[in-house]
Amino acid sequence: MTSLDSANGPTVTPTPTPASERPDISELVVGVLGGTGDQGRGLAYRLAKAGQQVVLGSRSAERAEAAAAELGLGVRGADNAQTARESDIVIVAVPWEGHGELLANLAAELAGKIVVDCVNPLGFDKQGAYALTPEEGSAAQQAAALLPHSRVTAAFHHLSAVLLQDPSIDSIDTDVLVLGDERAATDLVQALAERIPGMRGIYAGRLRNAHQVESLVANLISVNRRYKAHAGLRITDV
Amino acid sequence: MTSLDSANGPTVTPTPTPASERPDISELVVGVLGGTGDQGRGLAYRLAKAGQQVVLGSRSAERAEAAAAELGLGVRGADNAQTARESDIVIVAVPWEGHGELLANLAAELAGKIVVDCVNPLGFDKQGAYALTPEEGSAAQQAAALLPHSRVTAAFHHLSAVLLQDPSIDSIDTDVLVLGDERAATDLVQALAERIPGMRGIYAGRLRNAHQVESLVANLISVNRRYKAHAGLRITDV
Repeated sequence: MTSLDSANGPTVTPTPTPASERPDISELVVGVLGGTGDQGRGLAYRLAKAGQQVVLGSRSAERAEAAAAELGLGVRGADNAQTARESDIVIVAVPWEGHGELLANLAAELAGKIVVDCVNPLGFDKQGAYALTPEEGSAAQQAAALLPHSRVTAAFHHLSAVLLQDPSIDSIDTDVLVLGDERAATDLVQALAERIPGMRGIYAGRLRNAHQVESLVANLISVNRRYKAHAGLRITDV
Repeated sequence: MTSLDSANGPTVTPTPTPASERPDISELVVGVLGGTGDQGRGLAYRLAKAGQQVVLGSRSAERAEAAAAELGLGVRGADNAQTARESDIVIVAVPWEGHGELLANLAAELAGKIVVDCVNPLGFDKQGAYALTPEEGSAAQQAAALLPHSRVTAAFHHLSAVLLQDPSIDSIDTDVLVLGDERAATDLVQALAERIPGMRGIYAGRLRNAHQVESLVANLISVNRRYKAHAGLRITDV
């Protein structure tokens, strides 16, 4: 066992940014790739409801426009490439199976953008969910490898799409673990998470430690089955 | 992304056990291998304070007896083999480096016992902590492979040894994720966690999903550094 408290090595992290000093992201455009899926649509809904400008992306512009019209709240729809071009922050909410190919094809459009990967590589069999291990270590590290000119972060892994999409729920009681190697980018993504009532954005390490955060969804699925819940995470003492 | 809610496949899990119907473990003896380390000593202290009979194990019986005497509360000390023999539930709180060898040597003494692995295989460099991947998949799966006649579970990974050992703190605000392939064993370990004020024992999946739970300590170390905290976890909606 390694004690949590016995973290050796130099502490290179500067002091935390108080929530009140978070960057102002209210004018930034947020794109959601895979925005017609349950999780993408749920995130688009919550962010638009919070007043963020949102573009919902899909392979098909028509399907994206239809889904955007259904959401209302000023959400626009576009194909994935157009979504990437129009956005400052791009959330990647596509199935793991198409993740690498999609990002490789969008490398030019995503250059200079903040990319927020929220993909969980999981397999399923009769015993439930289990973690897949991408060759690069994690979905987020695969994104970073494919998008050398983007500012890649990882976040929003543990959200229930059911809760996100339920209009009768105003506040979602969970912390969003935000990972990344660039402080300015993770600060922005923490601020984005905190646009959604009930959520806190908590910095939780570098991209090299993304795999366990992505995979923890397998455990939360076990929790959900056992307790008939929509489990989320809170970090205590922060 | 895989939605948390879209867990396909048959649901084989029976309904959860209400806390009030948890097994009575008050008469069981709990051994702590590696009990002279910070985490082991902290767990021994908390469990003894809660009224559990505790045997603190170490390679050296003398060091174990000295540490036990320091703790008081009826805690006994013994060498690791004796500790395993005398205990019903055996917590493994040794450094990852000696984990496999220790367990291989104690396979006979641990036969029939409930083993609770709480080891986090981590490496450290100048950027902080990162996950190591044991050949078996996780420390807990290594334990299960080495101890085919024991009832192996995994739990207590995310506790701050500082908080555990601080006598001025009465309640520790955290959930304990409990993993294992045998329901009766995980129920007992959940009940054990709940002996400690403030803690809940939450079932969080099979041993094959232990790696991400063990590795998440790397992220909590990042949280602790950024926020000057002793971070713990809570599962919401349970």
